[in-house]
Amino acid sequence: MKASSRKPARANGQSCTHNDQHSPFGQIPALEDNDLTLFESSAITSYVAEKFKETGTDLLRHKDLKEAALVKVWLEVESQQFHPPMSSIVYQFYVAPTQGKTPDQAIIDANLVKLGQVLDVYETKLSSTKYLAGDFYSLADLHHLSYTYYFTKTPFASLINERPHVKAWWEDITSRPAFKKVAKGMKFGGD
Amino acid sequence: MKASSRKPARANGQSCTHNDQHSPFGQIPALEDNDLTLFESSAITSYVAEKFKETGTDLLRHKDLKEAALVKVWLEVESQQFHPPMSSIVYQFYVAPTQGKTPDQAIIDANLVKLGQVLDVYETKLSSTKYLAGDFYSLADLHHLSYTYYFTKTPFASLINERPHVKAWWEDITSRPAFKKVAKGMKFGGD
Repeated sequence: MKASSRKPARANGQSCTHNDQHSPFGQIPALEDNDLTLFESSAITSYVAEKFKETGTDLLRHKDLKEAALVKVWLEVESQQFHPPMSSIVYQFYVAPTQGKTPDQAIIDANLVKLGQVLDVYETKLSSTKYLAGDFYSLADLHHLSYTYYFTKTPFASLINERPHVKAWWEDITSRPAFKKVAKGMKFGGD
Repeated sequence: MKASSRKPARANGQSCTHNDQHSPFGQIPALEDNDLTLFESSAITSYVAEKFKETGTDLLRHKDLKEAALVKVWLEVESQQFHPPMSSIVYQFYVAPTQGKTPDQAIIDANLVKLGQVLDVYETKLSSTKYLAGDFYSLADLHHLSYTYYFTKTPFASLINERPHVKAWWEDITSRPAFKKVAKGMKFGGD
C-alpha cells in the first residue's frame, strides 16, 4: 500500500511522496494498493479502516448497523460543517505566508465565528457521549486530528480549550499512541 | 422509517414532512428509524443502502472491498466536486426567484465553467466504464439524480447532452423504474 500526498509525509519511519496522476482532478492524496488506486481522502480512510477492521481498532463499527450509521453521520459533520471553517483558518495562518501572502484576518475572523458555532454543537454532543458517534472512538473522531492539531498551535486554540467537553475529547483522542506517533512528523512548513 | 425534508416529499403515495429538530445543525433531511435518528444526507442514504443490501440492488457493493471503495471514491467526487457548482446553479435558477431575488448570472456562469470541467472528467471516466464506480449501478450514480434532474430542465442542459458518454449514462440512470417513480413527485416549487 502506497500513499501519495502533496507534502512528503513521514510517519513511523516511512516516507510517502506526492504523485497527482492518480486523481483525474489532479488532487491529493491518493492511495495505491496493488491494482487499486483511490483518491478523495474520506474514501481512502474508509477503505483502510474497512480492510483492517478485524485486526485493529474497528473504526467503522462494522458489527453494528446503527453505530456504523452514526459514525457516517459524524464523518459527514466533519466534512460538511467542521472542515470548511477549520481549513480556511489553517490555510490563512500557515499556508498563505508560505506563498508570500499576508493572512487575511477578516477571513480568519469570519471562520472563527462559524467554527465556534460548530464547536457549540460538539460541546453539547460530547457532554452526552464520550466520542462524537457514541461512547467509542471511531473514524469520525480520527478525521479531526490533522487540521485541529495545527489549529491548537495557533493563537485561536482557546476555541477548543474554553469548551470543557471538547477539550477533554481533544486531549483523549490526541493521547492515543497511534496519533502520538503520527504527530511527531506533523510539522507545517518543514521538518 | 420516517424521512424528514424541508419540502414535503411525495414518492409512491407517501408523504413526509419537515422536522429540523433531529439535526443539531437545524438541517434537513433527517431520518428516524425506530430509536435511531440520522442526519446528513450521505449518512442517511448509506444507512438505507446498507440496511437493504441483501434485498434490493446492492448500491454499496458490499461483497467486494475494492468495488465498495470505488463507490466511496465517486460518492466523494459527487460531494466535493460535482455538487458545489451544480447546487449553486440550481439554487440561482430555481430557488432565488422564489425568494424574490433575481438569479445572479455571474454566479451561474462561473459555476457552469466549474461544472463543465467536472463533467469533462466524467466523460473520460464514463468512456471506460458504464457507471461511475465501474460497470455496475451504485449509490454514487444515484446521488446525482436529484439536482441533475432539475438541471436538465434549465437552458444549461447542453452541458450534459453535448458529452455523449455523460448523456448515455444520464439516460440510463434516469430510465430505471425506481427513479421514474420518484421523478413523478419532483416538481420544484410545488404543485
